[in-house]
Amino acid sequence: MKKYQVVGIGNAMVDVLTRAEDGFLAEAGIEKGIMQLIDMERAVALYGQIGPAREISGGSAANTIAGIAQLGGRTAYVGKVKDDQLGAIFAHDLRAQGADYVTGLAPKDADGETGRCIVVVTPDGERSMNTYLGVTEFLEPSDIDPNMMADAEWIYLEGYRFDGPDSHAAFAKAINACKGRGGKVALTLSDPFCVERHRDAFRMMIREDVDLLFCNRAEMLSMYQTDDFDAALKQAGEEVELVACTDSEHGAHIISGRVRRHAPAVATQIVDATGAGDLFAGAFLWGLVNGYDAETCGRMGCVAASEIISHIGARPEADLKALFAKHQLI
Amino acid sequence: MKKYQVVGIGNAMVDVLTRAEDGFLAEAGIEKGIMQLIDMERAVALYGQIGPAREISGGSAANTIAGIAQLGGRTAYVGKVKDDQLGAIFAHDLRAQGADYVTGLAPKDADGETGRCIVVVTPDGERSMNTYLGVTEFLEPSDIDPNMMADAEWIYLEGYRFDGPDSHAAFAKAINACKGRGGKVALTLSDPFCVERHRDAFRMMIREDVDLLFCNRAEMLSMYQTDDFDAALKQAGEEVELVACTDSEHGAHIISGRVRRHAPAVATQIVDATGAGDLFAGAFLWGLVNGYDAETCGRMGCVAASEIISHIGARPEADLKALFAKHQLI
Repeated sequence: MKKYQVVGIGNAMVDVLTRAEDGFLAEAGIEKGIMQLIDMERAVALYGQIGPAREISGGSAANTIAGIAQLGGRTAYVGKVKDDQLGAIFAHDLRAQGADYVTGLAPKDADGETGRCIVVVTPDGERSMNTYLGVTEFLEPSDIDPNMMADAEWIYLEGYRFDGPDSHAAFAKAINACKGRGGKVALTLSDPFCVERHRDAFRMMIREDVDLLFCNRAEMLSMYQTDDFDAALKQAGEEVELVACTDSEHGAHIISGRVRRHAPAVATQIVDATGAGDLFAGAFLWGLVNGYDAETCGRMGCVAASEIISHIGARPEADLKALFAKHQLI
Repeated sequence: MKKYQVVGIGNAMVDVLTRAEDGFLAEAGIEKGIMQLIDMERAVALYGQIGPAREISGGSAANTIAGIAQLGGRTAYVGKVKDDQLGAIFAHDLRAQGADYVTGLAPKDADGETGRCIVVVTPDGERSMNTYLGVTEFLEPSDIDPNMMADAEWIYLEGYRFDGPDSHAAFAKAINACKGRGGKVALTLSDPFCVERHRDAFRMMIREDVDLLFCNRAEMLSMYQTDDFDAALKQAGEEVELVACTDSEHGAHIISGRVRRHAPAVATQIVDATGAGDLFAGAFLWGLVNGYDAETCGRMGCVAASEIISHIGARPEADLKALFAKHQLI
């Protein structure tokens, strides 16, 4: 038995969550519903503009790993924080959830700080993300422990982590170590504009290394540069063993070769959409490593996503296993 | 017109909020429902024991001031933070709410860090607080700007702030400056064990300087060392011009000399009791400085308290003025 069922690699960050009317987004130059990268200067200026906030550990892959850990999965996370207060908060919240977290810590005198994401939540529950990467941008091959990757059934790679000078090399090292010992690779496309920035690198990885692809409708369309969703799903199904594509209130589409299955969305009141895709992936992966069929995994994903969007913050609050039981999935 | 309607002085801290079953409190040596002071070593150990948490600006008097600011009151806060990430979070959240915050900042190389309070919320919504004071313990007379106090209709003093070597002298300086220009003094007793630690100093201040006393039932009984609540209220009424004593689900008792009025509690589901008393005081004071009678102020306090306990965190989320309007108080 491998030590880890899933090891995630991503951008480590603390979310700074605040509410605002839609008018504020235009005023502050924020594009609605996507993730924008910002520098420290912009982060300070924007922080001065937003209302009172709360801080909750985030990071896309870290949210996924937190979900798997809460479900009792054997899991670990790799992503760089600094030796500062936000770094301590991030590390605590992952470990307290039961995930291993042993990545290289940027020292107190390193440039930059622990990454943070200023998340502006509008009355419709949509989140618009403004990410200051800080030290997490500089995750490099030396931060990847090949033994850890070799000892993982799955590694889960965050698309956002394609930003950064040494990230591709770090991913390659992780993939080689994992696949060399029979492990599998899952990738999430993260964001349509992230796909824009890294389409070729994503495409190469999808064709050569990826066994399970997570994305949403917008990312899928951006990936295959088309408006034809069904055609894009079909093409993805030809390139990857398993594709799980979320589709907002339409649930999720699970593509396995030529077989297409559907998992319905679970109705809830949307308070804050942050982390919906992350927890979908976490629940899906937990189902997969525990032997559930792909359709059930998709249903688990939709249940977990509905939990996350029903409250502020991208880490699970309710007992996900109890929710799966309530929906007769386990 | 004075620049400020209310200036608060208290312990500046960020709340670290986590949920746990009652059994955890015993395991971790936490006494339920009260505030315990802890040192950094204990703070680190306890942080290692708790589950995932979220960080929301807190501090008793700061919560009160945030409430007054949200209502549109002219208000400021004095309480010491450090030049670190938690200090920046605390300062941001007060200013973003519309309160002035210009207190002396402990430098990066000062001993200790910005204060924090590990708040463990049990399933019944009760909060048990574990406070690492950090630099806020060392608020001293030089941190008090007499011009600011002179320019305040009211100063609001947090009982918790009686802990610390120079706090009594700092309070005396603030009171003198405020009263010297016709201002008034409100005091909150904060916690029954805080009353235990500082009963004589509280009593002297109540008799000599306090125009408005905030407390809850347990603090009132501890103050007058009796089990007879009515007798304690009566005695307080003889010593202070106005007394506002909260009484959980029984609402609040407002004592003005020999006249005793009652404000009913506003029913809600208790998610997290943190800050109920703080927001009661904030709403009460806002009513008072805007010319409402004491009973209406008490009703406003109960409405604000019910808002705070209906969600995680001690800063208001709903529009308090809209709630007052809904309850036909304005």
